[in-house]
Amino acid sequence: MTGEGGYVWLRKGKEWSKKTGHKAIHLEIGEPDFPTPENIIDATVNALEEGKTRYTQIQGIPELRSAVAEFLGKKRGVKISPDDVVIAQSLKCLIRATMEVLVDPDKPNTAFIIPDPGYGPYIANANYTGAKIYPLPMDERREWRFDVEVLEKIVETIPAHMKKVLVIVSPSNPTGGVLSQSDLEFIAKLAKKHDMTILSDEIYDDIVFDGKFHSIYSLPGMPERTILLHGASKSWSMTGFRLGWAVPPREMVRYVEKMVGHTHSSTAHFVQYAGIEAVSGPQGEVAQMRAEYKKRRDYTVNALRSFGCFCANPGGAFYVFPNVACWIKTVKAKDDNELAERLLSEVGVVCLPGSIFGEKGKGHIRFSLASSLENIQEGMERIRKWLDSGGKPLFEVH
Amino acid sequence: MTGEGGYVWLRKGKEWSKKTGHKAIHLEIGEPDFPTPENIIDATVNALEEGKTRYTQIQGIPELRSAVAEFLGKKRGVKISPDDVVIAQSLKCLIRATMEVLVDPDKPNTAFIIPDPGYGPYIANANYTGAKIYPLPMDERREWRFDVEVLEKIVETIPAHMKKVLVIVSPSNPTGGVLSQSDLEFIAKLAKKHDMTILSDEIYDDIVFDGKFHSIYSLPGMPERTILLHGASKSWSMTGFRLGWAVPPREMVRYVEKMVGHTHSSTAHFVQYAGIEAVSGPQGEVAQMRAEYKKRRDYTVNALRSFGCFCANPGGAFYVFPNVACWIKTVKAKDDNELAERLLSEVGVVCLPGSIFGEKGKGHIRFSLASSLENIQEGMERIRKWLDSGGKPLFEVH
Repeated sequence: MTGEGGYVWLRKGKEWSKKTGHKAIHLEIGEPDFPTPENIIDATVNALEEGKTRYTQIQGIPELRSAVAEFLGKKRGVKISPDDVVIAQSLKCLIRATMEVLVDPDKPNTAFIIPDPGYGPYIANANYTGAKIYPLPMDERREWRFDVEVLEKIVETIPAHMKKVLVIVSPSNPTGGVLSQSDLEFIAKLAKKHDMTILSDEIYDDIVFDGKFHSIYSLPGMPERTILLHGASKSWSMTGFRLGWAVPPREMVRYVEKMVGHTHSSTAHFVQYAGIEAVSGPQGEVAQMRAEYKKRRDYTVNALRSFGCFCANPGGAFYVFPNVACWIKTVKAKDDNELAERLLSEVGVVCLPGSIFGEKGKGHIRFSLASSLENIQEGMERIRKWLDSGGKPLFEVH
Repeated sequence: MTGEGGYVWLRKGKEWSKKTGHKAIHLEIGEPDFPTPENIIDATVNALEEGKTRYTQIQGIPELRSAVAEFLGKKRGVKISPDDVVIAQSLKCLIRATMEVLVDPDKPNTAFIIPDPGYGPYIANANYTGAKIYPLPMDERREWRFDVEVLEKIVETIPAHMKKVLVIVSPSNPTGGVLSQSDLEFIAKLAKKHDMTILSDEIYDDIVFDGKFHSIYSLPGMPERTILLHGASKSWSMTGFRLGWAVPPREMVRYVEKMVGHTHSSTAHFVQYAGIEAVSGPQGEVAQMRAEYKKRRDYTVNALRSFGCFCANPGGAFYVFPNVACWIKTVKAKDDNELAERLLSEVGVVCLPGSIFGEKGKGHIRFSLASSLENIQEGMERIRKWLDSGGKPLFEVH
């Protein structure tokens, strides 16, 4: 499936190490390398010891829904009701559940406008539901934001009888691009004009380096037409907990809950208590994490630019998505896929070819910053050496 | 969605208690009322404290797959490879994932033969995939097993070009019916003759009261055409952990893993360690639980039979599914739905109308035995009083 490359390349990287006996530099996985904060571990342990090991309401326990409503409401400057929050066993479950709710399975009549390059599950689920996909080209010369005129033209192209849904992921995986306040205002105006629904994936909201994070959900009239998607994985290093939440417009809540029930019934009971602690406990480690990612971003972008290629400066998330056209030329590779294969086999650096993220990802590479600065430095130094030699393998290729 | 009634009726029951101030007897939910064994809680706590809080392989960590392969292989008398086990965040996820794999989304050409009455998600997912459903009538006069000739006729009715899949859930939800060794041998013969795949849901395998549990997976030549579904919820009271596993034929493993990845990526990391302890740790509490369920079953079936209705004796699981035609007559209800509504509003007993489990569930009620004997006794006594009075409300109806 599109965008599932991380797991595949992780396996390849491990096999390479085993085969060659050398250390691979893993820059393929979008997983925070910080431990989950102690207070969250403790809250989970307490819940387990108190016997929170039963089915719950499918929508999620009221205490977690209240905590999430309070937390997100405060951050977005909007009042959110606990009744409008739906909990699930990962944001991914909710991407699927909400997209399914947005498409009539018997007679698909939905148009999804999806960023290109973009996070794979949106494309995969849109395909699965039978909806029509309109790729929204993201522009590296605008730091991976879109051209508002291009978006407007796409929206106007969609037949009037179709339900229109715009997917935004800001900060973005795989590009790190962050939409500006004026981008969001433009989207809001367009959404009202064309009765468009917004699926807003804000899982990276805490990881914005320059300036403030802005949410479409904060704009007047938008909560009524926005499905806010968020979860615990990124801000609190809780990838292994599998916990996400959505805030759909009120009239969709029951349907999203139903689809979540259809997928896995309720969410693991004690994990929901971990979520309460995450959103209501001390938030100090989030800032530390962000500072560390910023250091890594600054180093990586500088390094990549010094190799002579164009590299947009990611405003958030923990990815850098350089244009590697000149590397491809230097080492005489066919495309980004072959480049990524050779970066692994000849350089021992594991990364993702940009083309798995869509047509506009071609000729790019995704590096994840979810690795120590030391590791990233070693990876960049290896690449520098390789490029300087015109693509002479750093390691024996068997 | 079909079969999701438990959660809805739980809510109704709670509302009734709040409104009337009386205690409702909850016999609607299929959730073990025993605590999760201590050793499993401890293993989960240890995993959390050791930082098992990361993404894992989508298929599941090798240690859990090995433990499950060993455990199930021993119980089924068949060698199972860890490579063939797929872990997910509930058996329900795997019902969906495997059914999706069995249907070509672009050109559905699969026939699912599904027990009627039966567990809702099978019908719901079959509908969702666009496959064709052939209900297999289960017969209360055969203790909720099927008539082999009826099954054979159904299989012969299915057009030759269609992929045939037989769903079996034994012991069964909602009936408690258990297929016999000769039923399974008949199915095996039929499966080979008609190149049929078996989706065998064996989640209740530890809860069989009379004689031994038999699995289609133990019959020669059947692992190659059977998807074995199982999980942690029922045997170890781990409903709130959300942990299931499947053993598909080898050539399906990658596809099932892909669909699980599509649904929620990997399974919660520390929860996988809970699973290892469940299948490899001491199994004493399973036998205790079974003995307790048997006591409840014996009491409940006797009580229900003394009310004058036909009640098949469930051989396993923790449900009783009596025919309530005579109650409907006595209290002048329209059908099992109205009966269940009045059992709640007039008697304070929460149960599920049989018709939510399919056409053949009509005129029945599902009582769950996952409640203390004391509670069950109070429920049955209330019903006796109500029926004796010809349906005079025991509580004020507002």
